[in-house]
Amino acid sequence: MALVAAENHPIWDYVNHGQPVVKKPLTALPIIEIPTLAATGSEANSGGVITNWETHEKAVFGSPLLFPKVSIIDPELTVTVPEEYTIDGGIDIICHVMEGFFTGIDDTPIQDRFSLAVVRTVMDCLPVAVKEPDNISARSNLSWASAVALSGIIGPGRRGSYPLHAMQHALSAYYDISHGRGLALLLPYLMEYTYPTRPSKYAFMARELFGIDPEGKSELEQAKLGLEWMIDFLRSVGRFMKMKDVGITDDSNFEKMAEVTIRIYSPNKQYLVNPRPLYKEDIIRIFRMAM
Amino acid sequence: MALVAAENHPIWDYVNHGQPVVKKPLTALPIIEIPTLAATGSEANSGGVITNWETHEKAVFGSPLLFPKVSIIDPELTVTVPEEYTIDGGIDIICHVMEGFFTGIDDTPIQDRFSLAVVRTVMDCLPVAVKEPDNISARSNLSWASAVALSGIIGPGRRGSYPLHAMQHALSAYYDISHGRGLALLLPYLMEYTYPTRPSKYAFMARELFGIDPEGKSELEQAKLGLEWMIDFLRSVGRFMKMKDVGITDDSNFEKMAEVTIRIYSPNKQYLVNPRPLYKEDIIRIFRMAM
Repeated sequence: MALVAAENHPIWDYVNHGQPVVKKPLTALPIIEIPTLAATGSEANSGGVITNWETHEKAVFGSPLLFPKVSIIDPELTVTVPEEYTIDGGIDIICHVMEGFFTGIDDTPIQDRFSLAVVRTVMDCLPVAVKEPDNISARSNLSWASAVALSGIIGPGRRGSYPLHAMQHALSAYYDISHGRGLALLLPYLMEYTYPTRPSKYAFMARELFGIDPEGKSELEQAKLGLEWMIDFLRSVGRFMKMKDVGITDDSNFEKMAEVTIRIYSPNKQYLVNPRPLYKEDIIRIFRMAM
Repeated sequence: MALVAAENHPIWDYVNHGQPVVKKPLTALPIIEIPTLAATGSEANSGGVITNWETHEKAVFGSPLLFPKVSIIDPELTVTVPEEYTIDGGIDIICHVMEGFFTGIDDTPIQDRFSLAVVRTVMDCLPVAVKEPDNISARSNLSWASAVALSGIIGPGRRGSYPLHAMQHALSAYYDISHGRGLALLLPYLMEYTYPTRPSKYAFMARELFGIDPEGKSELEQAKLGLEWMIDFLRSVGRFMKMKDVGITDDSNFEKMAEVTIRIYSPNKQYLVNPRPLYKEDIIRIFRMAM
């Protein structure tokens, strides 16, 4: 809105959905954000997401112009968020940092530990916020996690990509499910598909996040335990799911979903960047794993 | 220098050393920093430290004007740092984050884990850099740890104080020892003096930083184990020390040192802010513990 109001052009000109030219924003109205949910972190980043329900495209756009000038983060505003969206928001925060962690370059221990610090804190505070919605300590730490997760301060220089978000957006563009729920749905299967390609990162997660003792275990074994712990966590908050749990009972849209994912999120390659590159067939396979 | 050159006033007018009025900087030359040591983090903060050898005062000053406009952090420039200063620099980084951790408010798990992330990484990389001075991975992670440690991004909202730095500055102002070495010298004794007052923070450190299993242990017991692990680390890098190891063989200056510490670092109180407040007598006691 800040962009469209200032430049008076259709928003989709700025959003990459496969068109030849993507317009660059030159001006935008100043933005002040007052988040009422701990989740996607718009209060401290410069991105946006929009869905076209007719073409089933859900795409991202961003510009430094869209950083909020001021954000007022008051955790009290989140105490009335219903349980289901509290959980989905928490999962969204976790995925924001895990994606950079799983896909970024090697040898970034501070960035990786900052990421796991956010994840661990969400894992600790989310069940508390679910049980006691007005627990201001849990809500405050979730709000802070939301703000830092995608702000750029936790992973500088690490690069990384967002294949999980890309695939989730295709899911949400075809089926009207919340962003965090779609991420929770796909996370274990993307991890299962990827961890043998890069066991070191997953083993590091297993040790640092879940305290798994590496003694006598290969990296691959540690990595697998890390995946299982992550599933246990998702199960504990009611988000270890299958497609049918979100109302998807057949695979008729999977091919189109995989196509749109590649077209929007990987315009210059035929695959999503991931330790195990995700071609169209790989994406379909992961969607099927979640059935 | 950036300040004195721009304002043409003596630097000690800007530095609190007990005078009635402390001058506020209004302008400064722009600063570009190219650190050649991973340590005190001037590349990403706005503070400075200066020693007056005649009055034995070592004091800090700071101003947003003194943030570098640009910092060029090239870890290759640190590969020729001698072993002894590599170690002292690493200890300095650890203390920068541990002080905020030990003294800040409760219920800041993300900030605390960010702090321990930096500490753990320094503990891992410092012995590598000592053994293989041109190991660019270890040097890079130490350089990044240096930059983030005192940059303000790891502990927002946590407040906290710097009693260890304050006491170390008195030590360095009387005896010409490196900053990091003075910190290493005092750290275990300040921890020992403080941990029973706030076992929860120290127990958190013990669990998260050293993987101590809390099963069947009180917080106080966990906290004590954390202290012992920290001493083990300092010993492993040759920095678990006594006063005599840095050439201090009598306590004749301790009273003056404690006085100057309070005068410079706690002008409005008679004690240094710490979970266990440090009056003059407490400071002398800690200096004596280190004999």
